Amino acid sequence: MDIATIVGVILGFALIIFAIVSDGEGEMFLNVNSMLITIGGMFAATLIHFSLGQVMGIVSVVKKTLFYKLSTEPELVQKMVNYAAISRRDGALALEEQIAGADDRFLVKGLQMIIDGQKEEDLDAQLSMEIDYLRERHIEGKKILEFMGAAAPAFGLIGTLIGLVQMRGNLTDVSGIGSGMATALLTTFYGALIANLVCIPLAGKLGIRSNKEGMLSEMTLQGLLAVVRGESPTSVREKMQTFMSAQNREELKPTV
Amino acid sequence: MDIATIVGVILGFALIIFAIVSDGEGEMFLNVNSMLITIGGMFAATLIHFSLGQVMGIVSVVKKTLFYKLSTEPELVQKMVNYAAISRRDGALALEEQIAGADDRFLVKGLQMIIDGQKEEDLDAQLSMEIDYLRERHIEGKKILEFMGAAAPAFGLIGTLIGLVQMRGNLTDVSGIGSGMATALLTTFYGALIANLVCIPLAGKLGIRSNKEGMLSEMTLQGLLAVVRGESPTSVREKMQTFMSAQNREELKPTV
Amino acid sequence: MDIATIVGVILGFALIIFAIVSDGEGEMFLNVNSMLITIGGMFAATLIHFSLGQVMGIVSVVKKTLFYKLSTEPELVQKMVNYAAISRRDGALALEEQIAGADDRFLVKGLQMIIDGQKEEDLDAQLSMEIDYLRERHIEGKKILEFMGAAAPAFGLIGTLIGLVQMRGNLTDVSGIGSGMATALLTTFYGALIANLVCIPLAGKLGIRSNKEGMLSEMTLQGLLAVVRGESPTSVREKMQTFMSAQNREELKPTV
Amino acid sequence: MDIATIVGVILGFALIIFAIVSDGEGEMFLNVNSMLITIGGMFAATLIHFSLGQVMGIVSVVKKTLFYKLSTEPELVQKMVNYAAISRRDGALALEEQIAGADDRFLVKGLQMIIDGQKEEDLDAQLSMEIDYLRERHIEGKKILEFMGAAAPAFGLIGTLIGLVQMRGNLTDVSGIGSGMATALLTTFYGALIANLVCIPLAGKLGIRSNKEGMLSEMTLQGLLAVVRGESPTSVREKMQTFMSAQNREELKPTV
Amino acid sequence: MDIATIVGVILGFALIIFAIVSDGEGEMFLNVNSMLITIGGMFAATLIHFSLGQVMGIVSVVKKTLFYKLSTEPELVQKMVNYAAISRRDGALALEEQIAGADDRFLVKGLQMIIDGQKEEDLDAQLSMEIDYLRERHIEGKKILEFMGAAAPAFGLIGTLIGLVQMRGNLTDVSGIGSGMATALLTTFYGALIANLVCIPLAGKLGIRSNKEGMLSEMTLQGLLAVVRGESPTSVREKMQTFMSAQNREELKPTV
Repeated sequence: MDIATIVGVILGFALIIFAIVSDGEGEMFLNVNSMLITIGGMFAATLIHFSLGQVMGIVSVVKKTLFYKLSTEPELVQKMVNYAAISRRDGALALEEQIAGADDRFLVKGLQMIIDGQKEEDLDAQLSMEIDYLRERHIEGKKILEFMGAAAPAFGLIGTLIGLVQMRGNLTDVSGIGSGMATALLTTFYGALIANLVCIPLAGKLGIRSNKEGMLSEMTLQGLLAVVRGESPTSVREKMQTFMSAQNREELKPTV
Repeated sequence: MDIATIVGVILGFALIIFAIVSDGEGEMFLNVNSMLITIGGMFAATLIHFSLGQVMGIVSVVKKTLFYKLSTEPELVQKMVNYAAISRRDGALALEEQIAGADDRFLVKGLQMIIDGQKEEDLDAQLSMEIDYLRERHIEGKKILEFMGAAAPAFGLIGTLIGLVQMRGNLTDVSGIGSGMATALLTTFYGALIANLVCIPLAGKLGIRSNKEGMLSEMTLQGLLAVVRGESPTSVREKMQTFMSAQNREELKPTV
Repeated sequence: MDIATIVGVILGFALIIFAIVSDGEGEMFLNVNSMLITIGGMFAATLIHFSLGQVMGIVSVVKKTLFYKLSTEPELVQKMVNYAAISRRDGALALEEQIAGADDRFLVKGLQMIIDGQKEEDLDAQLSMEIDYLRERHIEGKKILEFMGAAAPAFGLIGTLIGLVQMRGNLTDVSGIGSGMATALLTTFYGALIANLVCIPLAGKLGIRSNKEGMLSEMTLQGLLAVVRGESPTSVREKMQTFMSAQNREELKPTV
Repeated sequence: MDIATIVGVILGFALIIFAIVSDGEGEMFLNVNSMLITIGGMFAATLIHFSLGQVMGIVSVVKKTLFYKLSTEPELVQKMVNYAAISRRDGALALEEQIAGADDRFLVKGLQMIIDGQKEEDLDAQLSMEIDYLRERHIEGKKILEFMGAAAPAFGLIGTLIGLVQMRGNLTDVSGIGSGMATALLTTFYGALIANLVCIPLAGKLGIRSNKEGMLSEMTLQGLLAVVRGESPTSVREKMQTFMSAQNREELKPTV
Repeated sequence: MDIATIVGVILGFALIIFAIVSDGEGEMFLNVNSMLITIGGMFAATLIHFSLGQVMGIVSVVKKTLFYKLSTEPELVQKMVNYAAISRRDGALALEEQIAGADDRFLVKGLQMIIDGQKEEDLDAQLSMEIDYLRERHIEGKKILEFMGAAAPAFGLIGTLIGLVQMRGNLTDVSGIGSGMATALLTTFYGALIANLVCIPLAGKLGIRSNKEGMLSEMTLQGLLAVVRGESPTSVREKMQTFMSAQNREELKPTV
């Protein structure tokens, strides 16, 4: 679970809601029609731009980003050092029982390939391609969120224009101007909020997550390749630690 | 037919129209003069920027993107695996009767070249160039739509400025201000709608379609080259599947 | 003459003028002071950014783009095929009388060099450099127009701010507010119009023209080099047609 | 201490505060709710985009940029020339007592590695990686500040929209309109100020600092490598001075 | 002296001043407080972003760009051809008396190095580095001006927001609204003017000048290297003319 994101979302909405209700007339800010135009228009434009599958896919990407914690680097190195020890001591097949403890789909796939006796170059080719697909899926998710972040304020503006045109139609009713204007501005407000508190920062998070996950997968791949080549746990550790800052390196030893 | 796009367009316009007529005065939003300025101005600027042929060409590119479904990867692999089987069993000339079943212009062209007995390097050179032209035409279409997406709001603003200048000329007529302002804002509304619900997302779709189609053509080309070299159906399948994610790969066998 | 551009300019301005006069008070939109600020300011900023020579040069570049038609690819190939036939039959000197029929400065220069007996590598070096200079001049013209397209709205805004400050100085005169505001908005209107109907689309046209002309010059150069090497008309045609889409290729033969 | 930045911050805020209080009603500009929306919203969005660690890390990066002075190039060269002299005269171990005088963490680390007898290639690999990490950390800090500089005006706008909607709810109270509008605009004011006087220029400063520090570290690395190779002080000086403009070069000699 | 720039600045400001005073109340546009916020804020942000030295340095860069005329290419070729003739006839030392006639710091430095008997590779290394430094200084100046061009409108907006908040505090005084609004808009006006008539076009000019000066220095360097190698005046001319368009090439001969 990505705590900063959760805290950010809660903090942001709490602040906005507090500002809205502080006035005592918070219900003024709830308007189903306005939400329909802003959010519906944003989704409509997103569907035109992307395919249905891509738009659906983003939900799972975001969910994974928020609720699925990545391994830390030392955890990953420790695991791989153990695999190297087991593989050298008991053979590659002995890694089978380690699969249960591997919570990362990429790692599971790599282990399975080793157990299946695949050659180093096949492992390298297949897993490198997996890393590319992962990165592409993340980049796609980022692009969709960025597009939504641009579409939301645009449809907010469209909604406000509709409201203004409707309102000005009967300018003689003085008391109606104020509330008409307020309703018209609501869509702009929704658009700005969705873009700046949800879509744009979430797109940024996806980018950061993608970099991190790509780097961890790359580390994992190098570790697995060393395991396949039958290298010693120490050598596996050193191969993986070239990706890490010197400060974070530890002298991890097999724990199995 | 690209369902997401159709759904998006219908959903988007339905929402906007609903918002407009919910007020009971929907006809206020129909103004031929305002449409003339916004849409006419956008087309005028597009004609200045691009050539007549380019602007005309975009209609067919968009139509093809929306209504012409691309083959899926497994369909394409299956076809090519069959071609390989036929070609090895009955010779390249036997592919002639397969042309009727090939619904893709690029594939038809490639098959025709094989039947005509062209050499592998000529096939490669010619079809690679076709892929480049295809991509260029798509990119051009994308650029035109993006330009239109920038021009529409600009001419919307120009129309609103004209309306404001005209309106302010007789500020004494109080009741006229409201409706004058409403009419003036209509062009901005049209501009924002055309840009954000049509041009910009459609330009994005063209880009995605172009990538997809380019990748499928590339796969087709690799398959055709393998067929020309007389490789086995299995080898053809493997060559083509290097473009696909491991999850989607299937053990397709010739069905002829 | 580039018809799309001419049509676009006429269509665009006709629409705007129609919208302006439809009200019966078109003269309200003519204001010399407002034009002075917007257009004068735009030119002043352009002079500060670029040199006098560059700004003058743009007039001829635009004129050439609009009124000077480029050869089509088949015309060009036909010409070069003829040159090859003449050169092989009668020697390079016989090309002298072809210069009169060559309406392209670049082509004339190339022919002259061949007649002067220059070597292939000199021809290549000199004409490649000419292509580079041509491209640079076009890019420069594009940049100047783009800068003007950004400066015009900026000075339109500056003019409007001046008008607003002046107007607000005497807010007591109620009837004056409307016309003051109208005059103030005129500069913004001029700026938006100049940018979006003239500068920005014209800059785009220059870019497209530059690409096209560069490609034709490249084709010409390859043809001329083949002529100098004494290749056959067929070989010259094939060298040039590698730049063309397969659909447009024709079996052109010498017509001399 | 970076004087220009301190002067800039003080000058900027002094000017703004002077403008605010010149009216005699400066307290109107202090509104806790408005600050909460703008600054709180900005932080919330930043937390969603980045991780907690990254956001915390920026404080130390900024502090270091503002209050920790970098060595000048001649100072650095002088130090390294001395190290070379000491190392040649008394051996690498004699550098131990120089560590106390080295106020730069990077330099200390390099010296320590030399004293520990590490080989040239290890020194190069490790310290090059340190330079990369440093640069990455700076770029990350720059990106966070740039994001904040974009988020602040966005939440300023959101706050203003909330204020406008609330205000328009009771348009009948004429005297309330003015103060309502003023309060609504405050968030836009805060957002613009935070972005333009703090976040954006500070992000720029981080970029400049990063370039400078990267270059100094590169110089240091080249000097240290020359020391390890046992080169003469003159040779060390020359190696380092290739990074410097000819004007700034001095004939520095060992001072130990 | 760069005439276009001077003409542009005078023309631009004359137009603006004319528009301002045409109303008879030009003094309304002079407001020290407004200038302080806009210009002072812009400088404050610039100081935070850049170092004091960089900001000071821009004055001399701009002055040099405006008032120091670059040599034309033929002038430069002529000079170098003469140097080659002198050097071959009387030896490199005879170039000493030519230094007085060289008005370009870069050229003087190169001549001095030749007279000092420096080797070709040292000349090349040192002068290439000088060209890099020159370019970097120009790019830095361009970046500072561009930043100022973005900061000026931002602080103009901040000033206007301050004015609006102050004004709305007492909305009851009707006559005060107009003049309050006018004063508030002044900072936006100043910001737009400084950005669009000074900073942005000047930044563009610096870029053009930098390219030109870099190219001339490159030509000079190639000429000097040929002189050092003892090449003939004709050869020196040809080496330098490869940088020039064929049209501008002349058969320059030594005039000494």
